[in-house]
Amino acid sequence: MDACIVTGASRGLGRAIAMALASAHATAAAGQDHPLLSGAGMLAMLVARNEADLATTAEAVNEVEGVTARCLAADLATVDEMDALVESMVGAVKDALGNGDGGSLIVVHNAGSLGNLKYVDEFAGEGMVTTISSTMSLNMSSPIALTGALLADGGIASLFTNVVVVNISSLLAVQAFPCWGLYAAHKAGRDMFFKVLATEVEHIKAERGMGLVRVLNYSPGPLDTAMQGEVRTAISDASQQQLFAGMKEEGKLVTVQASANKLMALLAGNAYDDGAHIDYYDELPAGGGSSSG
Amino acid sequence: MDACIVTGASRGLGRAIAMALASAHATAAAGQDHPLLSGAGMLAMLVARNEADLATTAEAVNEVEGVTARCLAADLATVDEMDALVESMVGAVKDALGNGDGGSLIVVHNAGSLGNLKYVDEFAGEGMVTTISSTMSLNMSSPIALTGALLADGGIASLFTNVVVVNISSLLAVQAFPCWGLYAAHKAGRDMFFKVLATEVEHIKAERGMGLVRVLNYSPGPLDTAMQGEVRTAISDASQQQLFAGMKEEGKLVTVQASANKLMALLAGNAYDDGAHIDYYDELPAGGGSSSG
Repeated sequence: MDACIVTGASRGLGRAIAMALASAHATAAAGQDHPLLSGAGMLAMLVARNEADLATTAEAVNEVEGVTARCLAADLATVDEMDALVESMVGAVKDALGNGDGGSLIVVHNAGSLGNLKYVDEFAGEGMVTTISSTMSLNMSSPIALTGALLADGGIASLFTNVVVVNISSLLAVQAFPCWGLYAAHKAGRDMFFKVLATEVEHIKAERGMGLVRVLNYSPGPLDTAMQGEVRTAISDASQQQLFAGMKEEGKLVTVQASANKLMALLAGNAYDDGAHIDYYDELPAGGGSSSG
Repeated sequence: MDACIVTGASRGLGRAIAMALASAHATAAAGQDHPLLSGAGMLAMLVARNEADLATTAEAVNEVEGVTARCLAADLATVDEMDALVESMVGAVKDALGNGDGGSLIVVHNAGSLGNLKYVDEFAGEGMVTTISSTMSLNMSSPIALTGALLADGGIASLFTNVVVVNISSLLAVQAFPCWGLYAAHKAGRDMFFKVLATEVEHIKAERGMGLVRVLNYSPGPLDTAMQGEVRTAISDASQQQLFAGMKEEGKLVTVQASANKLMALLAGNAYDDGAHIDYYDELPAGGGSSSG
C-alpha cells in the first residue's frame, strides 16, 4: 500500500491536496498507470492543530474506497512535539502495513502561517519576538525537523520503496514585495532547504535502499482561501492591498481544487527536476525528471 | 557622529568588519569623502556572546582616534533578549549623541552559526529539534527582530539621518550543495527578508524622515576562519570535505581582512542596488545604486 502525509490538512489547500491524493489513488485502483500509486490501498496521515476541521477532511477522504485517513492533531509551531508526532506516524504506518511492504510515501509540507503583513519598521511592539519566533518554528523548523525524522534510519521513509517530498512554496519565495518580510523569508528558506535535499537524493537512495526519491517545491498560485482573506484585510502596503483585493474582485484567484489538481499532474507526470520551484502557472515539464537539484 | 552595529564581533569576519569600519572612519576624518561617514566620531556597538573576545575587538577598535567601542554581550539565539539588547543600544546611542544629531548608522548582521553539516537523513537523534530551533533563532529570527527594533518608531535608526543595513550572506544562499541544509535555508531566508526590506526603502525614508536608507546582502567569500575549520572537520559529504580541505591547502581561502575591505569598498562606492546579493568575487558595481530591490 501507499501512504501520504499532508500537514495543514484541516482546511484550504491542505484539505484539497488530501482529497486529490485520495482521488489519485482511486484512479490508480481503477487501472490507470501512475509512477507512484499502485491502487492497492492508501493510508492518509492528516496533520493539523484543529481536530474538528481535521475530522471533516478525514471524513471526505475516507469516502474514497481503499483510502484510510488517520488524524494526527499537533501544533507544528511547537517543534518539541515533533518527536511524538513522528512516533505516532511510525505507529500508524506499521499498523497499516502489517508485515507487508509499503509502496510510495508522498509527504506534502503544506502547513504555514503568514506571520505578519507589516512593513519591517512596523514590526516592533508587544509580541514582535513571539510572532517572529513562532512563524519561524511553524514554517521553517517544523518542516525541516519532520523531514529529518521521516528520512532517518528507523524513520517512516525506510518502510517504503519510494518517497516524494513536496514543499508548498510561494511566488513570494522568489519575488520580493513590500510587507511580506516574514512570509517571504521562510518561503525562500524552505525552498533552499529542499533544494539541498534534492542534491542528497542519490545518497538517500543508496543509504536507505530506496527506489525513487523525489523532491519538489510547488508554488500553488494565488489561492481563494481564508489566508487570502487575511491578506486583503491585514496587509499594510496599500498597493499590495489593492492588488489582492482586485484579484478577488476580478475572479483571478485560483481554487484550491485546481491547484491541488495541478500538483497531482506534476506528481503523475514525474518529469520535474528534483528541487525545482514550479508554479501553478508554469507548463508541466516534459520528459524524464533529473536529480540535478 | 556616525555609528555602527556589528553582530558576531568577537572573532573572524565580525571583528575584521568592526576594525575596517573604524579605519574607514579614520580615513574620512583625514579628509577623504565618504557617502556615509563624516569623520566626526564613530560609536561602534559590538555584539556577541563571548565577553572576553568582544573586549579584544573593542580594544583594537578603540585604538583608532575618534572611535568609541561599546561591548554588548548577548546571546542572539535567545531571541527573548532582543528587547533588552535594543534598549541598551538606544541608551548607548543617546549617551554618545548627547543633544546632537546622528549622521549615518551602519548595521552589519554578521552573527551566525553553521547548524549542522549533515545529510538530512542523518539529522535525527538526540538534540535534532534543539539544533534546528537554535539555528533558526540565531540566524533568522534574531536579525529580523533586531532590524524591526532598530527601524521602529522610537528605535535607533530615527536618531540618524542615514541607515545602511548589511546582511552577511553566503554563496550557499543561492547555490545548493549536499549537507548544507540548515545553513543554506537560513542564508536564503535572510537574503529574501532583506530583499523585502529593500522594497520598503521609500516607505522608511518617508515615515522616519531619513535621508538615505540602503540594504545590501553581502556574500563574503570562502573565509579562512575558525568556522571554515569546523566545516572541514564536520561535514558529512566526502566531496564537500575534499573541496574545502583543498581550498585551504591551496591557499584559496579569503582572509577576513580582504573580505571586510571589499565590503568597505561596496559601502564607499554606494552603487549597489538595494537588496542585491553581491559576492566577494563580483566586480564592484558602477554608477548610482537604485532602490529597485
